[in-house]
Amino acid sequence: MIIHYLSLIGVSVFAMSGALAAGKKKLDWIGVGVLASITALGGGTIRDVLLNRDVIFWIEEPVNIWVCLLTAVFTILYVRFFSPPQKTLLVADALGLALFTIVGAQVAEDAQMSLPIVAVMGIITGVVGGVLRDILASEVPLIFRPTSTLYSVAALVGVLVYLSAQALNLNQLMASLIGIGSIASIRFIAIFWNITLPAFHISND
Amino acid sequence: MIIHYLSLIGVSVFAMSGALAAGKKKLDWIGVGVLASITALGGGTIRDVLLNRDVIFWIEEPVNIWVCLLTAVFTILYVRFFSPPQKTLLVADALGLALFTIVGAQVAEDAQMSLPIVAVMGIITGVVGGVLRDILASEVPLIFRPTSTLYSVAALVGVLVYLSAQALNLNQLMASLIGIGSIASIRFIAIFWNITLPAFHISND
Amino acid sequence: MIIHYLSLIGVSVFAMSGALAAGKKKLDWIGVGVLASITALGGGTIRDVLLNRDVIFWIEEPVNIWVCLLTAVFTILYVRFFSPPQKTLLVADALGLALFTIVGAQVAEDAQMSLPIVAVMGIITGVVGGVLRDILASEVPLIFRPTSTLYSVAALVGVLVYLSAQALNLNQLMASLIGIGSIASIRFIAIFWNITLPAFHISND
Repeated sequence: MIIHYLSLIGVSVFAMSGALAAGKKKLDWIGVGVLASITALGGGTIRDVLLNRDVIFWIEEPVNIWVCLLTAVFTILYVRFFSPPQKTLLVADALGLALFTIVGAQVAEDAQMSLPIVAVMGIITGVVGGVLRDILASEVPLIFRPTSTLYSVAALVGVLVYLSAQALNLNQLMASLIGIGSIASIRFIAIFWNITLPAFHISND
Repeated sequence: MIIHYLSLIGVSVFAMSGALAAGKKKLDWIGVGVLASITALGGGTIRDVLLNRDVIFWIEEPVNIWVCLLTAVFTILYVRFFSPPQKTLLVADALGLALFTIVGAQVAEDAQMSLPIVAVMGIITGVVGGVLRDILASEVPLIFRPTSTLYSVAALVGVLVYLSAQALNLNQLMASLIGIGSIASIRFIAIFWNITLPAFHISND
Repeated sequence: MIIHYLSLIGVSVFAMSGALAAGKKKLDWIGVGVLASITALGGGTIRDVLLNRDVIFWIEEPVNIWVCLLTAVFTILYVRFFSPPQKTLLVADALGLALFTIVGAQVAEDAQMSLPIVAVMGIITGVVGGVLRDILASEVPLIFRPTSTLYSVAALVGVLVYLSAQALNLNQLMASLIGIGSIASIRFIAIFWNITLPAFHISND
């Protein structure tokens, strides 16, 4: 139940981030719907394929597809009347990252994976949709840019916080909320103060 | 049976579109074979993985691989002696799109999927091979370009026509032919008159 | 057993090639670990998904993930103190290609695939990790560059040598070593003398 509703909210915010990216690339309306759907459903799809689940989550619950398409239409209409605030895309992305990472970890827990795999599946669920969005829009993936401001760090820390909170006997709902809060906070702080990790640099000659 | 032969024709025309794209990028001969194969087999592969079918179609029937490689050789030889007509690539692509979309929908029907998933699997089968071709050739995917002239629209309309025709009690062969004809017609008309969907545009500042 | 150890060595050299590529793109430390992991685990992951194996190899043996992360840390530290020799990346890549191709063929043999599929799975295992590395780093994949100096040729020849050696009644260990040697030799020779296959070229007008 918790998984179910969190997941739909995450789908919607990530679909919005995909639709906004599509708008920056001047895609046509169908392209907006497709990019919104791939951004929102891509991470969970890869997770389900890697876990070899019998049925991919959006085949089991096609409502996920409708949420993507409705969000895409809403985003197109919204942007027609209101200008999107400067950092809308980054904020939507941070919320999607937070929700998806924790939901992905929960799915892996339900599949009785070991803790390292639960962490990896959380990060994959959170990060892969945005990477697909950026690759399809022919951008360097946000996560791999020198200016990515703790993107994957946030997912990693959040999933560890979530697992630790459960190890400390908090129930899954509380642990989820703390994990989601950690990820979103780290991203917001990193974006606001423009904090980045040290880069590893090899000169090209 | 219908699925089987339509599928092999689709593989061949899509392999040709991949080989021609490889020629534009000056790939070596092996690269031509690989790009032809990925373009032709990519969409169906993703469909089979998402449907969690026991065996991917080209593992079950390796003749698909041979069709790709022979088509690649044929394309290299053909282009050596004849100049490829201006819009060869777009025409091959339109035919491949039409065949693959309907075949993909049929495979999903055989796997007893619901109608929305049948439509999505048709579109994925038709569209994904070309997207992989464009990503690997470091192009913006045709489907996501502002000038894409109803690419995904054609797949979407075609699969809806196919499903409607069956709902009207036409047999699968007739419905397939009508669906394939719709997709190819929409693409040809859109290319000829350069029809595009309205774009969704957000300025970058 | 043979598969197991060869595979871990291959993971380590390919992770190094991913980490070095990350350094050329100035990724942050987490980005280095992610790119190293995707480069090292991507080919085998795609292979396992296509073969529909019950459990992806690095879920079954998470030691593969740790090898990637440790190699990434080692590479970052090494490059801090020693300058990476001019062709380090190409050599690491050639060794990874050789090991992964043969290991991938062995996994497909164990899954009782036919010979063409064994060859294809070997090539996919060897080549896909590097392709993902290049796509994520927004480079034209090495394998598709006009200057790729027999990259996929080496994998193709090596897997055929491996299969032929077994057909001539050599045991799997000997056949593996000969196959691995062939691939690495072809790549080293091709890099040293800058040998490329003839390209297929279509002018753009």
